[in-house]
Amino acid sequence: MRAVVFEQWKTFPSLTSIPKPTPGPGEVLLKVAGAGACHSDVAVFHDYDESMGMTQLAPSYVLGHENSGWVEELGEGVTGLEIGAAYLVYGPIGCGHCAACSRGQDTYCANAATNPSLASGLGRDGGMAEYLVVPARNLVPLGDADPIAAAPLSDAGLTPYHAIKNSLKNLQGGGKSALVIGLGGLGQIAVQILTAITGATVIATDMKPEAMERAAANGAVTVAGGPDQVAQIRELTGGNGVDAVFDFVGIAPTVRTAMASVARQGRVTIVGIAGGKYEWDFYSTPYEAELTNTYWGTIEELYEVVALYRAGKITPDVELFGMDDALEAYRKLEAGELSGRAVVVPSRATA
Amino acid sequence: MRAVVFEQWKTFPSLTSIPKPTPGPGEVLLKVAGAGACHSDVAVFHDYDESMGMTQLAPSYVLGHENSGWVEELGEGVTGLEIGAAYLVYGPIGCGHCAACSRGQDTYCANAATNPSLASGLGRDGGMAEYLVVPARNLVPLGDADPIAAAPLSDAGLTPYHAIKNSLKNLQGGGKSALVIGLGGLGQIAVQILTAITGATVIATDMKPEAMERAAANGAVTVAGGPDQVAQIRELTGGNGVDAVFDFVGIAPTVRTAMASVARQGRVTIVGIAGGKYEWDFYSTPYEAELTNTYWGTIEELYEVVALYRAGKITPDVELFGMDDALEAYRKLEAGELSGRAVVVPSRATA
Amino acid sequence: MRAVVFEQWKTFPSLTSIPKPTPGPGEVLLKVAGAGACHSDVAVFHDYDESMGMTQLAPSYVLGHENSGWVEELGEGVTGLEIGAAYLVYGPIGCGHCAACSRGQDTYCANAATNPSLASGLGRDGGMAEYLVVPARNLVPLGDADPIAAAPLSDAGLTPYHAIKNSLKNLQGGGKSALVIGLGGLGQIAVQILTAITGATVIATDMKPEAMERAAANGAVTVAGGPDQVAQIRELTGGNGVDAVFDFVGIAPTVRTAMASVARQGRVTIVGIAGGKYEWDFYSTPYEAELTNTYWGTIEELYEVVALYRAGKITPDVELFGMDDALEAYRKLEAGELSGRAVVVPSRATA
Amino acid sequence: MRAVVFEQWKTFPSLTSIPKPTPGPGEVLLKVAGAGACHSDVAVFHDYDESMGMTQLAPSYVLGHENSGWVEELGEGVTGLEIGAAYLVYGPIGCGHCAACSRGQDTYCANAATNPSLASGLGRDGGMAEYLVVPARNLVPLGDADPIAAAPLSDAGLTPYHAIKNSLKNLQGGGKSALVIGLGGLGQIAVQILTAITGATVIATDMKPEAMERAAANGAVTVAGGPDQVAQIRELTGGNGVDAVFDFVGIAPTVRTAMASVARQGRVTIVGIAGGKYEWDFYSTPYEAELTNTYWGTIEELYEVVALYRAGKITPDVELFGMDDALEAYRKLEAGELSGRAVVVPSRATA
Repeated sequence: MRAVVFEQWKTFPSLTSIPKPTPGPGEVLLKVAGAGACHSDVAVFHDYDESMGMTQLAPSYVLGHENSGWVEELGEGVTGLEIGAAYLVYGPIGCGHCAACSRGQDTYCANAATNPSLASGLGRDGGMAEYLVVPARNLVPLGDADPIAAAPLSDAGLTPYHAIKNSLKNLQGGGKSALVIGLGGLGQIAVQILTAITGATVIATDMKPEAMERAAANGAVTVAGGPDQVAQIRELTGGNGVDAVFDFVGIAPTVRTAMASVARQGRVTIVGIAGGKYEWDFYSTPYEAELTNTYWGTIEELYEVVALYRAGKITPDVELFGMDDALEAYRKLEAGELSGRAVVVPSRATA
Repeated sequence: MRAVVFEQWKTFPSLTSIPKPTPGPGEVLLKVAGAGACHSDVAVFHDYDESMGMTQLAPSYVLGHENSGWVEELGEGVTGLEIGAAYLVYGPIGCGHCAACSRGQDTYCANAATNPSLASGLGRDGGMAEYLVVPARNLVPLGDADPIAAAPLSDAGLTPYHAIKNSLKNLQGGGKSALVIGLGGLGQIAVQILTAITGATVIATDMKPEAMERAAANGAVTVAGGPDQVAQIRELTGGNGVDAVFDFVGIAPTVRTAMASVARQGRVTIVGIAGGKYEWDFYSTPYEAELTNTYWGTIEELYEVVALYRAGKITPDVELFGMDDALEAYRKLEAGELSGRAVVVPSRATA
Repeated sequence: MRAVVFEQWKTFPSLTSIPKPTPGPGEVLLKVAGAGACHSDVAVFHDYDESMGMTQLAPSYVLGHENSGWVEELGEGVTGLEIGAAYLVYGPIGCGHCAACSRGQDTYCANAATNPSLASGLGRDGGMAEYLVVPARNLVPLGDADPIAAAPLSDAGLTPYHAIKNSLKNLQGGGKSALVIGLGGLGQIAVQILTAITGATVIATDMKPEAMERAAANGAVTVAGGPDQVAQIRELTGGNGVDAVFDFVGIAPTVRTAMASVARQGRVTIVGIAGGKYEWDFYSTPYEAELTNTYWGTIEELYEVVALYRAGKITPDVELFGMDDALEAYRKLEAGELSGRAVVVPSRATA
Repeated sequence: MRAVVFEQWKTFPSLTSIPKPTPGPGEVLLKVAGAGACHSDVAVFHDYDESMGMTQLAPSYVLGHENSGWVEELGEGVTGLEIGAAYLVYGPIGCGHCAACSRGQDTYCANAATNPSLASGLGRDGGMAEYLVVPARNLVPLGDADPIAAAPLSDAGLTPYHAIKNSLKNLQGGGKSALVIGLGGLGQIAVQILTAITGATVIATDMKPEAMERAAANGAVTVAGGPDQVAQIRELTGGNGVDAVFDFVGIAPTVRTAMASVARQGRVTIVGIAGGKYEWDFYSTPYEAELTNTYWGTIEELYEVVALYRAGKITPDVELFGMDDALEAYRKLEAGELSGRAVVVPSRATA
């Protein structure tokens, strides 16, 4: 079968041919519907190398950790899944038997250091191929919803959803507000999720006018960057500041904006992994405002994301690529030329 | 000033003239904007008498416990409230210094048994008059929102809001469902609140088609009564049952419908005070489904209700009456002839 | 190997010899340390039959759903478990790939109706044998704690723990109270858990004086049955009633006692499966008091139970039996002659 | 009556004679039982001046914001309080009618900027005098518990209690851990509260061996300062780090220790107001670990603190001073010569 393979460190992936995999016990073979291309893939093949100690990410393997597909074959011991039915794939794969894995939060597996890989497409074969093998428990049924556009939800939907779920205590009831900083793929979905599951006033900010327009169409009040940004945000909240801030950029200036915008007893979640630093101090922090970060989500939360998708409350903005153009998806991603989330559709030669 | 006075047990109220009140220390004199007529008033003047031991409700006093108005005069020691500004009134008045009152939940005052009254209009003068005196802490600012239509929110908005807030743990995130049984004034506002602050599928049921139409216009999926009612509700939830049920009727058949519709780990709140009984047993209760009741709400929750009202997310359906027609409001309420919540506007002779 | 086998409906189990099992993929072979005998086993072999539709519990299989043991052999694909190390076994076994199973709550598996069994020892071979095969994810490490006395914790510890965890919102902070009705195996552990993880005043009640003495030794204030029981309980709470009630009996009189004892905004959990009915009504329920039931618990909660056990905060009261006396354990259980939880130690001929 | 009066900025207080106060409407006159001397008083009279804009703290007034006393006289409109009964005083005094005040959290009063003072003893007369006037709602009944030793609880008990209550989500159930950094008055009470209301392993650290001994006597595991401090703390938690950290010092090195000790999904609360800064960054923060601060607490929480005190679960370590020695209490506090919390007993000439 054809596949996009990350073959060696610091090397752009190849479109090549590899054997079709076979599901082992407890596993399922999927015919891939869609495989999202994610910024973290670029970091993996472009920035990392063996000196950084990330042995779990060492090549060679098929890329793609945002996957969906139709069940093709069940491995030994798997029952209750329907051949031909569409599923979204939970990417992370932990040891399967620690406390974190037992609650479906493989991202925080107690045995992460000794696991052979992190996730489908991150250390083991992912979804940028015609077929994909995953553990049965990593599948979430999509029913009759479009599986191709769903693919990015397994990361670009689940990551903001998890961050928002951890902030719901700050957003419950009337008169609350949320701020989304950075309106790329995850930020846009964050706006949709906040609009769907809370009554908060959703404020959104980005440097790109067209990103702000999309956010406004999804129900956000938008605020442009610039020297008045924080003042405008505070004014939209009656001067109190924002109850829950989500920073999808994560550089020092956006973290500062986040902390300058948060209300007393509010919460700031840094989602974007860009290494921004922030000098925290007691006096400049509104009382009880929390500063935290986040990482991906749980299997059960992916069920909840799928429920919102099936109800039409989340619609990822996607740009489709056929298998012939799969590498072009990564090229455009690296070049910043995509307007939506790139999804490769391996069953088609061209989109 | 003119006022609607409950003069003796088992007697319809009178429209009469009484002296304009003066605010004591810590109190505020309001020029009344609107005063809602509530079913519980009818119970007070029609059903109760001295033999029932409800000394706190003993006549004579002005009726009206759903009130709004403009600040006319501040009592001794009150600062920070603006003369002429509009406020909604939190009705319950407890001792002011027990643990429950300290958290703004006067409904559960530890000294309720020895307090002289329950609330404005329930044992002490209420809002069916040109002027009203209330403690300063019972006022919630309405800003530039219409104070007349706001009046019912202090009970018909706060009561469902409190019940829903206590059920938010069951409604958080994607894929949840809520059921509203009984689509009178409180039920309609419940539908609006659920739509505004949760992502749940809101299912609504009532015997009256026009009530269902209004609920549908507010975002609910409606299910008619009859033998298939529970089956239809369950089907709308994928067979799982409902995560949070609110019964605004509270008679035995509706409590049974509520318990038959609830999901495992769901919650049933009986809001309607109609004395319906239900034979609970372990086997017929889905695991961890909770059955509870509720009563009015807290001052802070009334701030949250007002925030939703000011944001246009709650719109009470009201029928206005001028002071000349104030008794007609109660007559129509008793006769079941109202289509919305009756609000008396004491500053006008006719609506 | 020797095993206690439930061979046919309405028949006392046999001590017999069966082949030593082999772990399949994802499974582990344990040498059994201890296997608890539970009242529900007696219901299974004594009360049920094929007419009741419980096909998942149909004989023949080895009994024992409260198990612990040492890892003897790892099935295909299992890594990260130490040969010879001691583990406690989470009993329930669901489909493994639904939302409930993904969060480690196999008790509420979405595919329960079509699963071949409920748990180890309930429809598939359990721990009343020299060896036991279970899925790797069902194991919780015991470290250097005694695995034999630990065995009952997987049900008699986990069941009250789950009920208590769901009630922690009612028990947080100072000035709270809990009531434990029924001081058998689960009730005694409930007293220990409540004392360990909350600051609540723990009130305990039972008909047997020696059970009350044990509860008192574990930190409870005890109240005897009889006409003054509820009055005494209320007096211990300053007249307010109890914040969280746990009824481990579950017959109509104990459910009534539970509901008569609960405080406003409190919670009553019926744990004992005895079918007691209760006539709920709005007026006699303190405002916002919740009535619910419960069933077993989650894998992650079993980790938390084990943490309390390893810290010496839970000590199950056990009566040990060797394999020669295994049937005697069930006989005494049926006859009500046990003072602690019966644990069979299959590796010994006699205790 | 005699009183300790803060007469002008940057000036040590005077022991002088002032008129006995009279309670206004809604207020109560207390005969003072005990008045705690707090470090923040020293900052007020020693460090601040008019240039700092803290007009609400401007002299002259009686010091003392940790007060208890016996009801001597009720102001107009106050009912339900018993003459001669002992009460603990909630110090903060807000506008009384905003959302924060309505929930008994005067510390976060929306009108703080325009209020005339912050609290009893902070801008208005406090408890370092024979008599004290406070609003009735600020009183929490002490029953038959010793009111003198209780006085410090209104700050040194309430402040850690509030921080801990906000962290209970991180401390619920078995297998959790807490770290207390800084074992002065608040830190010692924090250890007692954590031991009383959670099942967590409580780890405590301080530079003074005798402070560690007291913490150990209250149930903590102690770790000394030095280069191995964090390694030892992590080892006590099985390598995972601490679930809830409370830093009662708040200087840069202790904040660093706190953040280096916290577990994934844990929480760090900086309680000590010492202005320590910390360079937060995404990579060095365990996933979902929260960093926050805190300030005092609510009236309802003070009820809960009193419940723990009355149950013998909190015992503040106090050093008593009579009125003749009141200034000596502040002198010793400034000089760091106290071993417990200084409490002035105004009804006695000497302790």
